[in-house]
Amino acid sequence: MSRFWSPIVSTLKPYVAGEQPRIANLIKLNTNENPYGPSPKAIAAIKAAADDRLRLYPDPVSTGLRQAIANRFGVAIEEVFVGNGSDEVLAHVFQGLLKHEKPLAFPDITYSFYPVYSLLYGIETRIVPLDEQFRIRTADYGDDLGAIILPNPNAPTGIGLPLAEIEDLVRAHPDIPVVIDEAYVDFGGESAVPLTRKYDNVLVVQTLSKSRSLAGMRLGFAIGQRPLIDALERVKDSFNSYPIDRLAEAAATAAIEDGAWFVETCGKVIASRDKLIGELEARGFEVLPSQANFVFARHPDHDGAALMQALRDRAVLVRHFAKPRIADFLRISIGTDAECSALVAALDDILKAR
Amino acid sequence: MSRFWSPIVSTLKPYVAGEQPRIANLIKLNTNENPYGPSPKAIAAIKAAADDRLRLYPDPVSTGLRQAIANRFGVAIEEVFVGNGSDEVLAHVFQGLLKHEKPLAFPDITYSFYPVYSLLYGIETRIVPLDEQFRIRTADYGDDLGAIILPNPNAPTGIGLPLAEIEDLVRAHPDIPVVIDEAYVDFGGESAVPLTRKYDNVLVVQTLSKSRSLAGMRLGFAIGQRPLIDALERVKDSFNSYPIDRLAEAAATAAIEDGAWFVETCGKVIASRDKLIGELEARGFEVLPSQANFVFARHPDHDGAALMQALRDRAVLVRHFAKPRIADFLRISIGTDAECSALVAALDDILKAR
Repeated sequence: MSRFWSPIVSTLKPYVAGEQPRIANLIKLNTNENPYGPSPKAIAAIKAAADDRLRLYPDPVSTGLRQAIANRFGVAIEEVFVGNGSDEVLAHVFQGLLKHEKPLAFPDITYSFYPVYSLLYGIETRIVPLDEQFRIRTADYGDDLGAIILPNPNAPTGIGLPLAEIEDLVRAHPDIPVVIDEAYVDFGGESAVPLTRKYDNVLVVQTLSKSRSLAGMRLGFAIGQRPLIDALERVKDSFNSYPIDRLAEAAATAAIEDGAWFVETCGKVIASRDKLIGELEARGFEVLPSQANFVFARHPDHDGAALMQALRDRAVLVRHFAKPRIADFLRISIGTDAECSALVAALDDILKAR
Repeated sequence: MSRFWSPIVSTLKPYVAGEQPRIANLIKLNTNENPYGPSPKAIAAIKAAADDRLRLYPDPVSTGLRQAIANRFGVAIEEVFVGNGSDEVLAHVFQGLLKHEKPLAFPDITYSFYPVYSLLYGIETRIVPLDEQFRIRTADYGDDLGAIILPNPNAPTGIGLPLAEIEDLVRAHPDIPVVIDEAYVDFGGESAVPLTRKYDNVLVVQTLSKSRSLAGMRLGFAIGQRPLIDALERVKDSFNSYPIDRLAEAAATAAIEDGAWFVETCGKVIASRDKLIGELEARGFEVLPSQANFVFARHPDHDGAALMQALRDRAVLVRHFAKPRIADFLRISIGTDAECSALVAALDDILKAR
């Protein structure tokens, strides 16, 4: 604390990202990165744009990138907002669309940045528990809400909701914003983007960090009808005129346009995930049904924190959340088949030692 | 307006950046970009980092870049904060350090993003007029303030304050944060970074967009004692874990380390500025004394808006602010000597036509 701080600063509980250690030969399955590189066309686009033009500001409204996203999803460019990672997009969403007199609802077990944003912007929240099977029950999102935000698939559970159920939720709350955070949707989930054609209260947020393998370039976007996008633009233009640098825009545009690379690499991740689930179950793990590029699993005989540490001792990094209800679980990102095999070998070593 | 907006959204008055038109052969002197490219080492660093590692998140605390800045300024790495352009740094400064019960003071004519941030974060302001010569009078920043922010040199006037006067101001307000925004300091101003060694209430903000010619990569930083930096980190970690992408960090680190390129290109800009001032004065312009990479000038016989438009008709872009006290002025960024000559030729054409 310091007398120079704005009063809000001491009330914040900053988000803690998964660690990014600099250890050689680490099997890094802790931050849900894609094991395959981004589209080679994205790399080529960066190299083509890396010259003296970097002295100039980028396009403040990222026209090329927004048009590429609009083309891919069949929406108008004015229905697309982009930001420096979906974290920045979500921050603007919280400030611009989710702060109302009535509380914002989200699940008890979900992306742990949501309560952080809520503190940052002074948003009252209503925490809605997942059911016993760690599923979101949309019927539990009742009246007297100011807004709703849900990840689909949810994180860190990986469990997805069918589109029909999202539509029921959107329709049941026509007068409040319903935000669907689809960071992981491309690994088997159903996107709610089509609902933005029919409903003016739904906003979909996606990222290029997972399925487009551009975590290192920081890009996210939102799709919704114009009044929702207008709110985000007003907040953005009151915060930072140029959030997307020239190389990020070039890379992201190329990545969005390379549908073949996207389909191929997502397919490989899905296949590796389904194989890994079988191997974990064969070793006694309970694995929640995942539609994401990670699995959430627990072993009846092993403490989650201890298991994470034992894996770390074997140079395999996974994520553990020391939180109620999920402290027994590990969140394991899907790597290449070789990385998944190394994880399984390390687990065999640990389970055998017991 | 929309019923889905958080109430604050309709109160915002977003910043309007200088236009970034896509017109061929334009002489673009409207957004204070550097006419010379960034350090070739920055371009090389980007190309060396543009590979499959972009699938991985960047270092969330930008260790390499912060260390390079710390080395250059002779401070500790913990005394350096970095952001996605100095605009993002300033946004976090406003939210984390400048919101107090008492008002925030800044000049009436200054960086026009300051009132925008103040609205975004609900900060009460006290606007302190420049004197008749468009100079900041630090003695006018009286008691009963919660914080002070000043650009030095000021924008869009280009007028700098001597370090001794900044020190007097910092010493006169020991119990409130005093933020010095040094976007343009490298073109002849005196930096207040040395004051951060002696005073715990001063924070200095700089950018790589101007003197390091990396506007297209979006990088800014702040230097101050640890409690001030801690506040910014708490806000940042409640907003976006990874604001600096991998290529931005690589480019900025190389640019900071290339002192020779920095000295050479800043020297060229300063020489061109001083030459341009002479040419403008020879044509009857009043030019404020500039320590920046732009000049702020008015002609006794010409309306500022009309002059801007006449230049635009001749494919020369400069910036005009339709604001009280400065509506007669043009802000002209310093280009190459060839660009400055083209501007002067266009002015000759306009002045002769009258």
